[in-house]
Amino acid sequence: MIETMRWEDNALILLDQTKLPLEISFYTCQNYQDVIHAIKGLVVRGAPAIGAAAAYGMALAAWECCRKDIKNCREYLLKAADELAVSRPTAVNLFWALDRVKELITGDKSSQQLFYDILAAADSILRDDVIINKKMGSIGARLIPQKAGILTHCNAGAFATGGYGTALGVIRAAHEEGKEIKVFADETRPLLQGARLTAFELMEEHIPVTLITDNMAGYVMYKGLVDLVIVGADRITARGDVANKIGTYSLAVLAKEHNIPFYVAAPVSTFDLTLKSGNEIPIEERNAQEVREIFGYQTAPLNVPVLNPAFDVTPHYLVSAIITERGIIYSPNEDAVRKIILSS
Amino acid sequence: MIETMRWEDNALILLDQTKLPLEISFYTCQNYQDVIHAIKGLVVRGAPAIGAAAAYGMALAAWECCRKDIKNCREYLLKAADELAVSRPTAVNLFWALDRVKELITGDKSSQQLFYDILAAADSILRDDVIINKKMGSIGARLIPQKAGILTHCNAGAFATGGYGTALGVIRAAHEEGKEIKVFADETRPLLQGARLTAFELMEEHIPVTLITDNMAGYVMYKGLVDLVIVGADRITARGDVANKIGTYSLAVLAKEHNIPFYVAAPVSTFDLTLKSGNEIPIEERNAQEVREIFGYQTAPLNVPVLNPAFDVTPHYLVSAIITERGIIYSPNEDAVRKIILSS
Repeated sequence: MIETMRWEDNALILLDQTKLPLEISFYTCQNYQDVIHAIKGLVVRGAPAIGAAAAYGMALAAWECCRKDIKNCREYLLKAADELAVSRPTAVNLFWALDRVKELITGDKSSQQLFYDILAAADSILRDDVIINKKMGSIGARLIPQKAGILTHCNAGAFATGGYGTALGVIRAAHEEGKEIKVFADETRPLLQGARLTAFELMEEHIPVTLITDNMAGYVMYKGLVDLVIVGADRITARGDVANKIGTYSLAVLAKEHNIPFYVAAPVSTFDLTLKSGNEIPIEERNAQEVREIFGYQTAPLNVPVLNPAFDVTPHYLVSAIITERGIIYSPNEDAVRKIILSS
Repeated sequence: MIETMRWEDNALILLDQTKLPLEISFYTCQNYQDVIHAIKGLVVRGAPAIGAAAAYGMALAAWECCRKDIKNCREYLLKAADELAVSRPTAVNLFWALDRVKELITGDKSSQQLFYDILAAADSILRDDVIINKKMGSIGARLIPQKAGILTHCNAGAFATGGYGTALGVIRAAHEEGKEIKVFADETRPLLQGARLTAFELMEEHIPVTLITDNMAGYVMYKGLVDLVIVGADRITARGDVANKIGTYSLAVLAKEHNIPFYVAAPVSTFDLTLKSGNEIPIEERNAQEVREIFGYQTAPLNVPVLNPAFDVTPHYLVSAIITERGIIYSPNEDAVRKIILSS
């Protein structure tokens, strides 16, 4: 499997996910501004992967302090953290990772020491993410029947994380256990992460996958081809409302109509217990051109008004269970969420 | 407004709908085989427009009989009708139009007479379709509030018909009555008839339109932006099950979840009273490449398995009302459908 990101020669090398599956190429970040550019442009995407990339962005900022002999390194780092924090507004793992790094930025450390500490933290976030995903995979696989048609949306796989994946991690684990899995992947307009990344990833792993357009989800459910839906998440509130890629909410409603369980797989770092309702989660509105064209090819009248929310919110009552590395939260509500998330 | 089709110099000139909105060009059919090619390739699409085009295809076949002095013109015409009938399997207006033409093919007529009669029938199907659409528009507009957010799918407008449109005809009529209409148009993957045709048509008419990707439908409903859904139909059964463009069923489920009325606008020629359940309607499965690419641009791994049903079926119990030129069928069932359809 291709690595989503790696640290090499004091630079962050990102797999350029905008080019897949046509081209496997890499994008080198030499400073934290390059990382911001990569996050905004979706070179790296997926809540956990964005968190890890932002941590490496902070390592790059610390490395700049050393190499350019910046006098007030602490101030420079906090400025970098602020700028990284506003690169994308919805996924909370970004803020979680930056907070973890910021704890290391104390006034008594040399630039060199700050660099070592932050790089170690970034490495650990990335490495831990894979461990967490595998844990979630093994826990979540319990929910997967021996033979299952599974619908997923967007890409919550290895490319969205340090490796292995959240929703696709559960699918991967069930497949490794010998279960007979057949995945339906929504292509996920506008940016086609399902067609470009999920289909690619599952084919590489020899897990049977069928690509559908987003508007076919109801059809495959009606035809009895889907036993469960599983998706990732960008932010989950205290009562279990789930922000995830636009289209997720429609899937949850369709799953309810067909009595199909709707599962979310997400690490504890995706939870934001400061918010109760999902309506409080800021939803990123992206460039209208993403809807008016596909990879630069115009598909609609120039200047047609467009909506382009990158995410939507699925209310907790439509979620059958949330799979975390600390256990499964069934029928999420405030008590059920706290019981699992605050356990250790 | 650009004409969907016209007869000129003994040829059928079709607006090439595959090229819109980037290019306004025309496709000339010199014989009935050209018409079959145009129907299969979606140069002309939309159930009523396909019916009219097929009737003109028969006129072209009759003209060939005259010009090539084909001995058994009747036999040639029936062969042409059979070939036209299998060009697309789902929309019933095609069979309806061919049946109407076939009634004219009696053994006692000269080729010349057959040509005149069939051309007159085709002209009348096309002309009547506009009259029917305007009738439906005026009847259906009663269901539209003074101020309304309306979601529509695919293109059930002037290009799908002889002119004016079915679902968009109702929207057009409400707009002409001075109602404050705001339309959300699903782009409608894989072939983007919503982005390419509906958005174009509504902008030409200065009816406010916002383009969304198919997976945003649930989001706009959840946000309270949609007061009703209205779509066209390709075939409607005796109890009111509706075959229409893939994705329609998902919209009907979403509308139910949000207590939003779900309307279908379709002429009487779209009804197939020989079928009770929508499960009996043959659903066309189209080429997998339509899903793997967008206008020839590859968006998914080569050879990824794909589903590509062109239509789905919305069961009658999810349909609030069907608008026809003979009146509105509320809460469709066999009695309600027959009462309106068999009235005159």
